[in-house]
Amino acid sequence: MTLFLRTAPRLLKRSLVNQKVSQYTAILGIISNVCNPSHASGALLLHSSATHGATGSDEVSKAQKAAISGEPTIFSKIVDKSIPADILYEDDKCLAFSDVAPQAPVHFLVIPKRPIPMLSMTTENDQVLLGHLLIVAKNTAEKLGLEKGYRVVINNGQDGAQSVYHLHVHVLGGRQMNWPPG
Amino acid sequence: MTLFLRTAPRLLKRSLVNQKVSQYTAILGIISNVCNPSHASGALLLHSSATHGATGSDEVSKAQKAAISGEPTIFSKIVDKSIPADILYEDDKCLAFSDVAPQAPVHFLVIPKRPIPMLSMTTENDQVLLGHLLIVAKNTAEKLGLEKGYRVVINNGQDGAQSVYHLHVHVLGGRQMNWPPG
Repeated sequence: MTLFLRTAPRLLKRSLVNQKVSQYTAILGIISNVCNPSHASGALLLHSSATHGATGSDEVSKAQKAAISGEPTIFSKIVDKSIPADILYEDDKCLAFSDVAPQAPVHFLVIPKRPIPMLSMTTENDQVLLGHLLIVAKNTAEKLGLEKGYRVVINNGQDGAQSVYHLHVHVLGGRQMNWPPG
Repeated sequence: MTLFLRTAPRLLKRSLVNQKVSQYTAILGIISNVCNPSHASGALLLHSSATHGATGSDEVSKAQKAAISGEPTIFSKIVDKSIPADILYEDDKCLAFSDVAPQAPVHFLVIPKRPIPMLSMTTENDQVLLGHLLIVAKNTAEKLGLEKGYRVVINNGQDGAQSVYHLHVHVLGGRQMNWPPG
């Protein structure tokens, strides 16, 4: 662990110079991968607060800097189980898990296992998969007792405040959602 | 038109007693149907401000009173063309049109032609249709030049602030969307 604490700042500096959140994600992913299992949870918190744990305008600011890269995102690492998450549902096509920075009493994400960066990069061939994500969102909301309702949100690109470039469906409930939706 | 102005208050009173926004919608739909075409646009505005033209907490307040009924909603009437809308896309399964109370420079809705009341009432059989709605949302956003991004929102039930009980996908863009999403 000492080695990672020594090397992490150098790696982070390089990342900040490049101003790519995705690189930051990849670097923290390396840290997470080499940590022994007892440290995995701590690595997730560090990783998450850097990439998906911000709230409010901070999240928007991160979204404005985020970009697509060929490197694995935090969500790919949740899919391959190299970092842990509170998994609510899983099948061969997708995964549902709690958001680490909840914006409502219940806030979870549904993601495809295939790393599609964003909704605008889907094609007609992804139609069934996209429908499946919504059905899983609905079923999971039901399982979590959101009978009073919920809101489903997909952020696409900078104006949409997308901060992780792995397509994800937010589901928020357990409180009255307001209008406009952000 | 004079006849409608005379009968509308009585009909509205009955509606308010029953406290069902959906009945209000149906009554205004009748007004819209009997108006001659030159009045159709005015009828839409009246209709819309009563059911889907509110903003902010007003929208939430309407959502809290809205309920499912067997009666046609404003969106069914847009589908059957008995009231006009700014239609952006149409095929045999769905329709995309501008929201009458935009919350962003670009704000449109994608709805299935089949009157499914809400996401939580869909089934596995609706998977392809749901995926199609998202693909149409994406294609229409592209057509409208939202290359900087956008947000897709589905409100489900009271906590989600759903005000019209005909499943609809909101797409908002042309400005930075904030976080949390309402």
